[in-house]
Amino acid sequence: MSTMAQGGAGEGRTPAEMGASSAEKPWVGVIMGGKSDYEHLAVTSELLTQLGIPHEVRVVSAHRTPDRMFEYASTAAERGIEVIIAAAGGAAHLPGMVAAKTVLPVIGVPIPATALNGMDALLSIVQMPKGVPVATMAIGKPGAANAALFAAAVLSGKHPELRERLAAFRGAQEAAVLRDSVIV
Amino acid sequence: MSTMAQGGAGEGRTPAEMGASSAEKPWVGVIMGGKSDYEHLAVTSELLTQLGIPHEVRVVSAHRTPDRMFEYASTAAERGIEVIIAAAGGAAHLPGMVAAKTVLPVIGVPIPATALNGMDALLSIVQMPKGVPVATMAIGKPGAANAALFAAAVLSGKHPELRERLAAFRGAQEAAVLRDSVIV
Amino acid sequence: MSTMAQGGAGEGRTPAEMGASSAEKPWVGVIMGGKSDYEHLAVTSELLTQLGIPHEVRVVSAHRTPDRMFEYASTAAERGIEVIIAAAGGAAHLPGMVAAKTVLPVIGVPIPATALNGMDALLSIVQMPKGVPVATMAIGKPGAANAALFAAAVLSGKHPELRERLAAFRGAQEAAVLRDSVIV
Amino acid sequence: MSTMAQGGAGEGRTPAEMGASSAEKPWVGVIMGGKSDYEHLAVTSELLTQLGIPHEVRVVSAHRTPDRMFEYASTAAERGIEVIIAAAGGAAHLPGMVAAKTVLPVIGVPIPATALNGMDALLSIVQMPKGVPVATMAIGKPGAANAALFAAAVLSGKHPELRERLAAFRGAQEAAVLRDSVIV
Amino acid sequence: MSTMAQGGAGEGRTPAEMGASSAEKPWVGVIMGGKSDYEHLAVTSELLTQLGIPHEVRVVSAHRTPDRMFEYASTAAERGIEVIIAAAGGAAHLPGMVAAKTVLPVIGVPIPATALNGMDALLSIVQMPKGVPVATMAIGKPGAANAALFAAAVLSGKHPELRERLAAFRGAQEAAVLRDSVIV
Amino acid sequence: MSTMAQGGAGEGRTPAEMGASSAEKPWVGVIMGGKSDYEHLAVTSELLTQLGIPHEVRVVSAHRTPDRMFEYASTAAERGIEVIIAAAGGAAHLPGMVAAKTVLPVIGVPIPATALNGMDALLSIVQMPKGVPVATMAIGKPGAANAALFAAAVLSGKHPELRERLAAFRGAQEAAVLRDSVIV
Amino acid sequence: MSTMAQGGAGEGRTPAEMGASSAEKPWVGVIMGGKSDYEHLAVTSELLTQLGIPHEVRVVSAHRTPDRMFEYASTAAERGIEVIIAAAGGAAHLPGMVAAKTVLPVIGVPIPATALNGMDALLSIVQMPKGVPVATMAIGKPGAANAALFAAAVLSGKHPELRERLAAFRGAQEAAVLRDSVIV
Amino acid sequence: MSTMAQGGAGEGRTPAEMGASSAEKPWVGVIMGGKSDYEHLAVTSELLTQLGIPHEVRVVSAHRTPDRMFEYASTAAERGIEVIIAAAGGAAHLPGMVAAKTVLPVIGVPIPATALNGMDALLSIVQMPKGVPVATMAIGKPGAANAALFAAAVLSGKHPELRERLAAFRGAQEAAVLRDSVIV
Repeated sequence: MSTMAQGGAGEGRTPAEMGASSAEKPWVGVIMGGKSDYEHLAVTSELLTQLGIPHEVRVVSAHRTPDRMFEYASTAAERGIEVIIAAAGGAAHLPGMVAAKTVLPVIGVPIPATALNGMDALLSIVQMPKGVPVATMAIGKPGAANAALFAAAVLSGKHPELRERLAAFRGAQEAAVLRDSVIV
Repeated sequence: MSTMAQGGAGEGRTPAEMGASSAEKPWVGVIMGGKSDYEHLAVTSELLTQLGIPHEVRVVSAHRTPDRMFEYASTAAERGIEVIIAAAGGAAHLPGMVAAKTVLPVIGVPIPATALNGMDALLSIVQMPKGVPVATMAIGKPGAANAALFAAAVLSGKHPELRERLAAFRGAQEAAVLRDSVIV
Repeated sequence: MSTMAQGGAGEGRTPAEMGASSAEKPWVGVIMGGKSDYEHLAVTSELLTQLGIPHEVRVVSAHRTPDRMFEYASTAAERGIEVIIAAAGGAAHLPGMVAAKTVLPVIGVPIPATALNGMDALLSIVQMPKGVPVATMAIGKPGAANAALFAAAVLSGKHPELRERLAAFRGAQEAAVLRDSVIV
Repeated sequence: MSTMAQGGAGEGRTPAEMGASSAEKPWVGVIMGGKSDYEHLAVTSELLTQLGIPHEVRVVSAHRTPDRMFEYASTAAERGIEVIIAAAGGAAHLPGMVAAKTVLPVIGVPIPATALNGMDALLSIVQMPKGVPVATMAIGKPGAANAALFAAAVLSGKHPELRERLAAFRGAQEAAVLRDSVIV
Repeated sequence: MSTMAQGGAGEGRTPAEMGASSAEKPWVGVIMGGKSDYEHLAVTSELLTQLGIPHEVRVVSAHRTPDRMFEYASTAAERGIEVIIAAAGGAAHLPGMVAAKTVLPVIGVPIPATALNGMDALLSIVQMPKGVPVATMAIGKPGAANAALFAAAVLSGKHPELRERLAAFRGAQEAAVLRDSVIV
Repeated sequence: MSTMAQGGAGEGRTPAEMGASSAEKPWVGVIMGGKSDYEHLAVTSELLTQLGIPHEVRVVSAHRTPDRMFEYASTAAERGIEVIIAAAGGAAHLPGMVAAKTVLPVIGVPIPATALNGMDALLSIVQMPKGVPVATMAIGKPGAANAALFAAAVLSGKHPELRERLAAFRGAQEAAVLRDSVIV
Repeated sequence: MSTMAQGGAGEGRTPAEMGASSAEKPWVGVIMGGKSDYEHLAVTSELLTQLGIPHEVRVVSAHRTPDRMFEYASTAAERGIEVIIAAAGGAAHLPGMVAAKTVLPVIGVPIPATALNGMDALLSIVQMPKGVPVATMAIGKPGAANAALFAAAVLSGKHPELRERLAAFRGAQEAAVLRDSVIV
Repeated sequence: MSTMAQGGAGEGRTPAEMGASSAEKPWVGVIMGGKSDYEHLAVTSELLTQLGIPHEVRVVSAHRTPDRMFEYASTAAERGIEVIIAAAGGAAHLPGMVAAKTVLPVIGVPIPATALNGMDALLSIVQMPKGVPVATMAIGKPGAANAALFAAAVLSGKHPELRERLAAFRGAQEAAVLRDSVIV
């Protein structure tokens, strides 16, 4: 995919110009179970920046730092966070447990981190019981990218300018395919 | 689960009193591939009503009425729809194709309608490529219920009263478990 | 299986005579995500009783009562609990999250409660990351029974009389098969 | 496999001599969700050329260019296209959605493009509901090759010379195995 | 689905009036591994009749009558058969072996006949090696119905009137959904 | 594993001395769908040689050479073949179709040759319907080795010296593990 | 299937007349993990009787009677047993462990006894490591029937009259299909 | 993960100082089906050493050395072993068979050693029937590490100092995540 397509929403502006300076209070909290997950999640941060959405990226482990996880989830709303993106592999309890401690929308990204290549994380994230939803994305990088786009869609209810940026992103994406679609 | 828990958000009021009269313009469009899917989706409508969220429920088939699907998706925003919930079984293309034609948040619910008992629908809905997200819920009724709750969470950015209703729903749900938790 | 085989460890004695009176402080905490899981877990309590192991059975939901879950897990040891058996279906976060909040041995039982018939719960319980183990049993009733027997095996390090009861249980079980093994 | 076996249908002739010049109106439209899928689809074009079947190869994305997809599908017949081969990975909605917009025969090829290695694409393509069929081939290159051979079989109803070319291809293929079948 | 939708292609005419009399030479051979498979395949015959396509339905077992299978496959073309629909469960070798003995288009339908509920048959039918394609449909009845529709699409290259009947079928199908699409 | 363990049955003798000269009529026919499968099957031939069992190794493709396959299967017994080992990947019809054309014992080996890594071949080989058995081994090299050992076990009914060689093989195998079993 | 087809090998004779009196020393030992497995295994005994093969049927549990299992396996050959058929569900260790203690041919039948419907037993039985083969049949009743037929094929090396009975069985089976193969 | 986190329980002391000298009688027996499994199991021994738990590591194969396995299992308790960790791949019968011959707690670790990447071993280990439990850990290295930690949890009933070391390990693990949790 060309840079044009990916850069469609914020072409020619720096993140700061788009309103994503790190000084600003984050709208989106991106958390993951371990630092190695960031290999998959980097695209999430890139797309949020590109769409001008202030965000933070943190390691919060459901199993190794359960108290920190509960504190993060239960204080996110009062800190101004509007959407949480949580990524995890294997048993992947992070998204669901965060969702249990907040009524903010939680987006889950299954990471292919074990011998089962993400199928374990997918089922663990998506099969939430009635009462506590997690919006599950595809396994790995496609899901990590879409988590950013879906966060933007959620935020666009309150921040209508994001709807336009998303439409521009889609338009650039479509144009990139159309521009170069003849193979034989 | 007691009626208390389920009724927490709107106890003692009729749907109309809560603002969900059918005369009002819907905030949420609930669509499904076939009428038989409503067996799974009835709970979605019930919970939306309970949370006071105006909505409509329609049959829109990706494969049997593709033009209607595109029209529904591309005109939803201008009709005032803010979130789309799309349910489908088997190949389950409805949620992803609707998402391709709108930048509104689309929530997908996999229906167990084939010999593979929903695993086909789950993978078909969740494994969206980079660029077009679908927020996937659990297979069947738990996912159908959570689609309503997640829609409420999305809407609560713009409609803050929903955040309180969601918190009340969670509180009632928690209380119902705590009230009756001793077995032996 | 004959009653002999099942009753081997405590034949002819009431639970109270075997030391499992409810007045006693429980050694094993049996928890499950919802009351309907008890259909699968009843055998756990029966076998613990039969082996003379004081225990309690509680509904503790990871997603609907997260604070209660953390409190249960973090205070279990000081209440004298020596082993926790946690059962859950679907996303099945209960065993892993309890294990994150205690260093007591936690035994997990996957419940077949969704369209995926327990495969989701199995993967969610067993695929724990390095650092926080859950001892996973088979899906459903066989696993629920074995959770009791494994708890007894764990306890027998400190309570050697349990090793003998387990050996008697095994002996009775073996005898029941041998007694009646000719079909054609 | 020897070149003989693969080249059986059109040995010694150029594609143009066999009637597959790009100037001619295509009988088969080969479309795929993204350019990277062509790694798997190149064999499709090669075999169509070898069998003397005029064709075109295009990138048409169900999710990134939905309108283009509908236009492609709904105008294919009037442009003289007789068979459509559609390949996609992940959620893989392309074949099924194209099939929803045409009554031409649509052949689907699942591409192994995600962490699930094509199982997602296979189920998404094959599990079409009653009313809109997609003729699904094997995952990846074997399926991409067979899509060309199956398109030839479909076309041979109207173009009987293709039946002979297919028979020659099969004959060469059989001879290649028989020629060299003794290992020990 | 209303009778209207299913009957769209041949409403008001008997099979004979539509040209599907059993006296006519069959265009489509429908074969299955065992008589019990007809429970799934009845819809195939019904739809072929409805579309006015002469056909025969036979039990031909790959494993119990291998010679009969080879004879059926290798003489089908000279008997005037233009498309073969082959259904099988379990190891499901029938479609692939028939395809190995003819260059006619072969459509495969996986039957859910074992403990694995059709997943075995699906993989066995669809995962054909390069060189011998089988056009695989969905597991069970949806696939059995679509096999008839796809056979019609294949035949419509040579028999253009079928293209119109298929379009009418699709139109009736679409109308049936649209007529009755409002639930709430 | 040491050479001792593998060589246990025929240590110090050449294949010819053990009676496996290629001049002798083969007792075991080893066939596979394609030459590339021999990468997995080489061990089969090695173990048969080591156990002194005359055999032949041939490429026989169910799909590319169906007539050759039927001829091979139906004439094997009269040629003195007593056991057939058939290996195949993907749809993997070879073992089951050979079994349909002979009453000799047929041993099937699933080859991991596709994106599904042998699961397709395993199900296609093992899920044979009532009436025509195939003795299925593990996927890939372990199964290919065991096919040789199982063929020896079958042959040892008529050729009792093989039972002793198998026992010697097992003894050497056991000794090799015991000799070197202390790690820490 | 008609009684003719099933009764083909021994029509009109009692088991005793066919040489399968219980007074005779068994050639085949049929064992299973629990009495409830006999629901699936009854057909095994019926077919062995029909083919005139003396046999015994016993419950031998790998986990509940491990010593009995080892004794059974290690003394089978000296008792005159020539083939062992072992059936088990779930973890299904019986066939593999019996195979580890004998060089007789061991045939394994996976029983669908758990929430995973036999997939667990299939993998546990078939995925044996290099060195100790188990001839695995299909899950459940088809596999149980085929175990008897495969045992007959194995025995026919030493007992040539069985080869003729198997051929007659196959002939009757084929005739039954052919007699009644026209549906439409 | 930093060395600090892993070394938390025994920082600055040698294994001997922590009481894990090889002269001491082992509390934990770590066994595996083959030497190559030690690639996955090394971390088990490292963590046991770090926690000051005397242990031995042995190759014991269920299939190649069944008698040795039974002897190991049935004499472990009298040798002072308190917990057995058994790892195996493929059919993976070792943990379950050891559990059948002892009432000591047995922990099973599935090794990804075949084409199915550990799913076979997982199901074979975890799906034990009622009566004989195996405490199953995650597939591969995470499970191998957790087996050591779970063994420590089991032992801490009798050896309370281990509970403190486990708590220290957890504390160090938590601190390591918290220390370094800000990414963006």
